[in-house]
Amino acid sequence: MNGAESLVKTLVQGGVEVCFANPGTSEMHFVAALDSVPGIRCVLCLFEGGATGAADGYARMAGKPAATLLHLGPGLGNGIANLHNARRARSPIVNIVGEHATHHIPYDAPLTSDIEGLARPVSAWVRTSRGAGAVGADAAEAIAAASREPGQVATLILPADTAWTDGGKVAPVPPIPAPKSPSSDAIDAAARALRLGPTSMLLLGHKALRAKGLDWAGAIAARTGCRIVAQVSNARMERGAGRVAIDRIPYPIDMALNTLKEVRHLVLLGTSAPVAFFAYPGKPSTLTPKDCAIQTLATPADDLIGALAALAEAVGAKAGDAQRQKSAPPDLPQGALTSEKIAAVIGALLPDNAVVCDESVTTGRGFFPATRGARPHDWLQLSGGAIGLGIPLATGVAVACPDRKVISLEADGSGMYTLQSLWTQARERLNVMTLIWANRAYAILRSELTGVGARNPGRKALDMLSLDNPALDWVSLARGMGVEGVRAASIEELIDAFRAGLKKSGPFVIEVVL
Amino acid sequence: MNGAESLVKTLVQGGVEVCFANPGTSEMHFVAALDSVPGIRCVLCLFEGGATGAADGYARMAGKPAATLLHLGPGLGNGIANLHNARRARSPIVNIVGEHATHHIPYDAPLTSDIEGLARPVSAWVRTSRGAGAVGADAAEAIAAASREPGQVATLILPADTAWTDGGKVAPVPPIPAPKSPSSDAIDAAARALRLGPTSMLLLGHKALRAKGLDWAGAIAARTGCRIVAQVSNARMERGAGRVAIDRIPYPIDMALNTLKEVRHLVLLGTSAPVAFFAYPGKPSTLTPKDCAIQTLATPADDLIGALAALAEAVGAKAGDAQRQKSAPPDLPQGALTSEKIAAVIGALLPDNAVVCDESVTTGRGFFPATRGARPHDWLQLSGGAIGLGIPLATGVAVACPDRKVISLEADGSGMYTLQSLWTQARERLNVMTLIWANRAYAILRSELTGVGARNPGRKALDMLSLDNPALDWVSLARGMGVEGVRAASIEELIDAFRAGLKKSGPFVIEVVL
Repeated sequence: MNGAESLVKTLVQGGVEVCFANPGTSEMHFVAALDSVPGIRCVLCLFEGGATGAADGYARMAGKPAATLLHLGPGLGNGIANLHNARRARSPIVNIVGEHATHHIPYDAPLTSDIEGLARPVSAWVRTSRGAGAVGADAAEAIAAASREPGQVATLILPADTAWTDGGKVAPVPPIPAPKSPSSDAIDAAARALRLGPTSMLLLGHKALRAKGLDWAGAIAARTGCRIVAQVSNARMERGAGRVAIDRIPYPIDMALNTLKEVRHLVLLGTSAPVAFFAYPGKPSTLTPKDCAIQTLATPADDLIGALAALAEAVGAKAGDAQRQKSAPPDLPQGALTSEKIAAVIGALLPDNAVVCDESVTTGRGFFPATRGARPHDWLQLSGGAIGLGIPLATGVAVACPDRKVISLEADGSGMYTLQSLWTQARERLNVMTLIWANRAYAILRSELTGVGARNPGRKALDMLSLDNPALDWVSLARGMGVEGVRAASIEELIDAFRAGLKKSGPFVIEVVL
Repeated sequence: MNGAESLVKTLVQGGVEVCFANPGTSEMHFVAALDSVPGIRCVLCLFEGGATGAADGYARMAGKPAATLLHLGPGLGNGIANLHNARRARSPIVNIVGEHATHHIPYDAPLTSDIEGLARPVSAWVRTSRGAGAVGADAAEAIAAASREPGQVATLILPADTAWTDGGKVAPVPPIPAPKSPSSDAIDAAARALRLGPTSMLLLGHKALRAKGLDWAGAIAARTGCRIVAQVSNARMERGAGRVAIDRIPYPIDMALNTLKEVRHLVLLGTSAPVAFFAYPGKPSTLTPKDCAIQTLATPADDLIGALAALAEAVGAKAGDAQRQKSAPPDLPQGALTSEKIAAVIGALLPDNAVVCDESVTTGRGFFPATRGARPHDWLQLSGGAIGLGIPLATGVAVACPDRKVISLEADGSGMYTLQSLWTQARERLNVMTLIWANRAYAILRSELTGVGARNPGRKALDMLSLDNPALDWVSLARGMGVEGVRAASIEELIDAFRAGLKKSGPFVIEVVL
């Protein structure tokens, strides 16, 4: 058994079922081992950002890591933006990067680079295997590092000789530490703060935003009168009819400050204190008022559901106290395409148990309220602000959830970063409907240009924010990658296309021309 | 004058004429300054790998740096693969990366990351500006660092507040050290070695491969009988009729070893000792025989043309001694598409003074000999082995050389990495004809899988190397980005399409179905 075979066997025994791969020469033995050892589904991506983004989407839904397979430093480089997003989403990923054979590295061949240096900024755990006999144990530790709460990126660098040399040993995954619970003192302090009512806020993140956590949070709010709110961007939220609905902190800085301006006691559960997404001249970085007391009740690494249950008990709330969202799909609108009407279409037509991957950027600011009373669904957001996650994310979600409809809401500027993943959706016949918001601009930057106080932008500045010369044609782009697509230029066309897409079991693209 | 304005003015005064940009919120003041201060052409790229690859192409032809504009750590991440290639090509680039405002960084907002950490592996010079008053001087030093021989990537990280705060100062570019010349002892030693005849080899790299350098090298070879050879991958070579033709070391390891097996004295001029591109079980990393003496006459940082002239004098060769290539375009072939016939078409139809950007990978192995006697042209190669350079490279070349026809030879697997640059070609109406070798496979990996000794690949391994399910449709992909394209399935169709493309002044894609 060579090192590569021990790696695949260790991954299989450690519960890794999928590898999102974009291999090169130095990874050929790993490819051969994936081929000969059963148990891992290999999903080919045509760009490494597609592989890392898919691994993020898979992890958010499967609750366990997939592996990636990337080619040396440049391949890792191409995957960094979506590893950054995965790190912010706290997604477990076993990120496997090929490397030249150990003896070849000193010769500085053209593809040689500092892989560990590139990996560290996006990885909680980095290791280069030192020999075929160590690969199995390294992989087992990578699985453990990735899987411990709150989920991490573990990067295992695999020199080609450690893969091809005999002497591989399969290793068991070491014990993964259980998440901790808050002390009873901390629970009591949080309970006291939240009992003060509407000037108190329970800010939720990570797994507190699943149905069970929100149920407890809703019960606490019902009992104490405190507000429950989520961060601006969240890896996964369970919502829709029958779930406890909560708002998010808005993205625009002034709206965010306004949301928090009355808060005097902030209790953090699975997240950190809210800060501005970007800095702006004359605006603060922290979103809470100066006189707001902040208590971290539980970090994302802690037992969030247990902490919520204990907190509910401390305030005297019971399961079932929460006010759950009633089914309230919006009425179907008519006429010209506006952001509000599109939101209503999504809210009305979202199928039961859908998974929504949202990289809508400006177009989607109103989607959240309009889908509050839609059929039950999961809502996944761009977590780290690095655009180009959406199409890969939806790809990974569809691999993890073959029985659910994936709705991918994608801004055109963001979609262009990683459009290659449409091909993977076609190849794997994944059940993803992608809606492209074709406003033909980096629309967010138009307002940001004003927001940072840049004065009187001229033609050259505006040209750098517009994508209309030439206009992107997403129906052709989709066709080029084997994916069927249609264009919708009115609400009626959007409704027809959406309904047609719901009936398909493979990928489908709707270019919504705004 | 704010920091951003001082940055743009310093760039303009320092000779930077182009900025390949992919901006975000934190870069809005730089965008506003590019808008208000005349002198820099802004070229919008829809993906950062397009920006960095274009800056590489621009630098290879213009002989001076362009600027990039990238958005924070993830934007830099997306640009890393082509910065790696640029580093290997020794291309001068002033790589500008936005960063959060200095006071905002400690708050760990979603887009915060270790930008310096990501920049270091691909940059010879990295600095984060410390204030508006320092930005001008930092930019001037970045230009100097990028421009010194042999050309480097200089990464300037620009916190948003250093851009928006007043107090910017324009700074002059500090003196750039002149390249050094070899000692007369070193020249004499090299002359002695080369006079030994055909068991001696002068291995050339970097600017020694321009017409003037090759002329001297050809004179030295004519006088001494030594062999003159280039590395496997070269940033830019001037060749074709009227130039001195030289061979390159082949990529396949066994062919490379065979090329060097008789060499007993190797003189390096503008390059390092040849090593295997990848390691293979049981094969050496160094390509030279064990008993080969190796002398580094000049590093890429040295005055290579001066060194060649001095060496010519030492061996008694005169300008004009070189045997120059006669015009010998191949005959136009007919029939089915093969790599050999395609090579002949390129050799026959290449227009005068064309710039060829070659990321052909497997399909293009025979292109070099067949174009030896073509009309005079420049040949630019993938220098660092990180695929996904070709389309961006051609884009930057066309910006640098508006009066020359750019011929972009692109493998389909590689082209998919950075296809977004086709849109930039359409937007800027760049004179680029792209030929896509649609073999619908990572064909190189099929032979590499055998080459590393991986045994009996099965369906799963072969699936990871094939792109035929579904087949990519490059005509649709091009159309989706506003670029006209046609498909060629025979030599006759290729000839017709090639001739049609030569008549166009904007971008054009030919999908060559193999």
